[in-house]
Amino acid sequence: MDADVIVVGGGVIGTAIAWRAARAGLRVTLIDPGGDDPLVDDKASLVAAGMLGPVSESVFGERDLLALNLHAVDRFPSFNAELEAAAGAVTGLRTEGTLAVAYDSGDLAALDRLTDFRHSIGLAAERLDAREVRRREPFLAPGTKGGVFAAGDLSVDNRRYLAALRSAAAAAGVQAVGGTVTAVGAGQVVVRPGGPGPSPSEPRRPAGARPRRLTAGTVVVAAGHATRHLDGVPAQVRGAIRPVKGQILRLRHPGNIPPVLTRTVRAIVQGHDLYLVPRADGELVVGATQEERDDRDVLAGAVHDLLRDAAIAVPAVSELIFAEANAGLRPGTSDNGPILGPVAAAGGRRLIVAAGHFRNGIMLSAVTADAVAAILGGQPPHPAWAPFRPGRFGAPDLPSEAGVPAGGTAAAAATKGETAR
Amino acid sequence: MDADVIVVGGGVIGTAIAWRAARAGLRVTLIDPGGDDPLVDDKASLVAAGMLGPVSESVFGERDLLALNLHAVDRFPSFNAELEAAAGAVTGLRTEGTLAVAYDSGDLAALDRLTDFRHSIGLAAERLDAREVRRREPFLAPGTKGGVFAAGDLSVDNRRYLAALRSAAAAAGVQAVGGTVTAVGAGQVVVRPGGPGPSPSEPRRPAGARPRRLTAGTVVVAAGHATRHLDGVPAQVRGAIRPVKGQILRLRHPGNIPPVLTRTVRAIVQGHDLYLVPRADGELVVGATQEERDDRDVLAGAVHDLLRDAAIAVPAVSELIFAEANAGLRPGTSDNGPILGPVAAAGGRRLIVAAGHFRNGIMLSAVTADAVAAILGGQPPHPAWAPFRPGRFGAPDLPSEAGVPAGGTAAAAATKGETAR
Repeated sequence: MDADVIVVGGGVIGTAIAWRAARAGLRVTLIDPGGDDPLVDDKASLVAAGMLGPVSESVFGERDLLALNLHAVDRFPSFNAELEAAAGAVTGLRTEGTLAVAYDSGDLAALDRLTDFRHSIGLAAERLDAREVRRREPFLAPGTKGGVFAAGDLSVDNRRYLAALRSAAAAAGVQAVGGTVTAVGAGQVVVRPGGPGPSPSEPRRPAGARPRRLTAGTVVVAAGHATRHLDGVPAQVRGAIRPVKGQILRLRHPGNIPPVLTRTVRAIVQGHDLYLVPRADGELVVGATQEERDDRDVLAGAVHDLLRDAAIAVPAVSELIFAEANAGLRPGTSDNGPILGPVAAAGGRRLIVAAGHFRNGIMLSAVTADAVAAILGGQPPHPAWAPFRPGRFGAPDLPSEAGVPAGGTAAAAATKGETAR
Repeated sequence: MDADVIVVGGGVIGTAIAWRAARAGLRVTLIDPGGDDPLVDDKASLVAAGMLGPVSESVFGERDLLALNLHAVDRFPSFNAELEAAAGAVTGLRTEGTLAVAYDSGDLAALDRLTDFRHSIGLAAERLDAREVRRREPFLAPGTKGGVFAAGDLSVDNRRYLAALRSAAAAAGVQAVGGTVTAVGAGQVVVRPGGPGPSPSEPRRPAGARPRRLTAGTVVVAAGHATRHLDGVPAQVRGAIRPVKGQILRLRHPGNIPPVLTRTVRAIVQGHDLYLVPRADGELVVGATQEERDDRDVLAGAVHDLLRDAAIAVPAVSELIFAEANAGLRPGTSDNGPILGPVAAAGGRRLIVAAGHFRNGIMLSAVTADAVAAILGGQPPHPAWAPFRPGRFGAPDLPSEAGVPAGGTAAAAATKGETAR
């Protein structure tokens, strides 16, 4: 076999899984179109804002997802501290919390419901009047009517975080292979060589390069929205994943302007859910659109709307430098929850899916890595993952230990040298 | 001497001059921070829209500049044809004219004045009612009240045009040298090696590289706004040049959308002078801001305003792909006119300035190259250039033949081999 574990996809999910698996003593190969460079290709991880807020409009009524998110945010700081130590790099974790602001009485009422809800599940939430909101964030528009401060919310610089995961993975011995996986099976993948091309459907590749087959005890598919294109993933899982386009801006402070925000701000502006996420290095991320589309074109109208909404919330945003406009495809699912667990097993080898993290990939990356590490070790993942097994979509519902050779887990087997080439 | 002519600056002005001088048989060196690659550095040429309209709001009352512009547009097509043949490349010249549109009766009255003015100087101008305007450009907003069609206006793809000039220059024997000129004199320049850095004030350069002196019969300064930083250019000329920042967008048509415009459209939107310039390859240039500033930061507010104004004029613009936002520094002058002529002469060698072309660099490039070629040949340039001599700012007002050795012009001297190394 070429490895104990092959991970398909080098976004935050796949890379976190690869790092933790290698750290557990397994031989891990990570396959990604970008090869050694995590900061290329169409990864949703690169387009994210990096907010880690367990409660948002979208999970208000989704108790199972909320429980998972709470578990994720609880776990994140320790995982991140270990990551920074392993990578020798910072990820830009910020702990100043989130300020949700309101512009009218309807918004305020919605924020009150959110405050009550946060309190009901034991999360901090502090109702602030207009004056207090602007005292904390003086650049907010004068029309701000009030807000709620959520002290426990975190944020992380998504690109630094991904780069740190890759460094930690490399330091732990993960082998990065450049290529596009076209098919997977229990313990095997077919890889088409070559890096990212002008579009995901046209990868750049060496002339004459032929697809090759790699084998491993376990294959983990962490290919985000592209999981739906992978031959060998059960049809029910493929069918449950849908791309949800997001367009996002990155602004930068010129030297003469102090930070316009000191913490993440969320608002509903003209009916759009807007967020503004500041970084320590002076970047301000403005997001995001959400469209049920499968292209990554940044449209003039989206850039306009984001800039308009941001300037309504924080007028001084107009004075910031326009650094970047990007679009990514979030891996949405039929029920907005991630998909995690074994989906195929044969001859002591298996196929695991860890995909569909939708808007929550960075927040869920640490606990996803934990969960896959548990499965690789023959253990069940944390109970918060139970509702998110592939079987809920009608795919084969294998137990966590499916495919593990009798008499030992994959990790144990690796330790014994039974999976040596 | 290192060359017959050294041209400082590889934008459209400097490159056109270098090409025509080389074509006249002179040995020409072109010095530019980008070296062989014209499409780098902070050239205003790269940020332009490439409109060639001799009449605009800004030259309405400036008769001398208007006369020069008319001469320029008259000359451009033949120059361009020769260029395309010499370069073996197209420049994207478009001849569909300009449509100026109005949104209210004030705008219409202003357009009527412009129409009368165009007629008074013998230019075509056709008044169109709202229906006819939208028949010709169906994607214009329904609120368009009417417009004027200027049949003679041209446009060219500024980047293709610059690339073609560089190809033609290279084919004619122009030697491109990478570096930043820090000082000039009659027949000499001081060059600091190295290409463009993160900013014009911090060029990237090989460690330990030292400035060197190059000599020539004639030095031509075509350094745009940076001419004001050049030691050796007379203080009065340096003081007359000011940077005028312009921010501009480049949009692109997705495959499923037909061209939203078939010709250049101009409008006053919310008090801003807006233009939309379509290219044959599906690009649409949207411009431009105009600020008396010396930085090249693209600001969020400017991007927002351009997108808003463009969508007011042509709502379908929102569906186009946001390809690029850029800023450049136009070389403005105290009286908005270019500066062309000799400014220093000593020992049979001289210094010529060809700068300050403000918003009209591409339009004026052909006739600027003609004028400098004339001066190099000991002839006076076209009479339309007479009002634009450096002397009008109080600089030494040298005759066109200043610095030419007795008994022959520089071109003649070159032919005789008198300027050989």
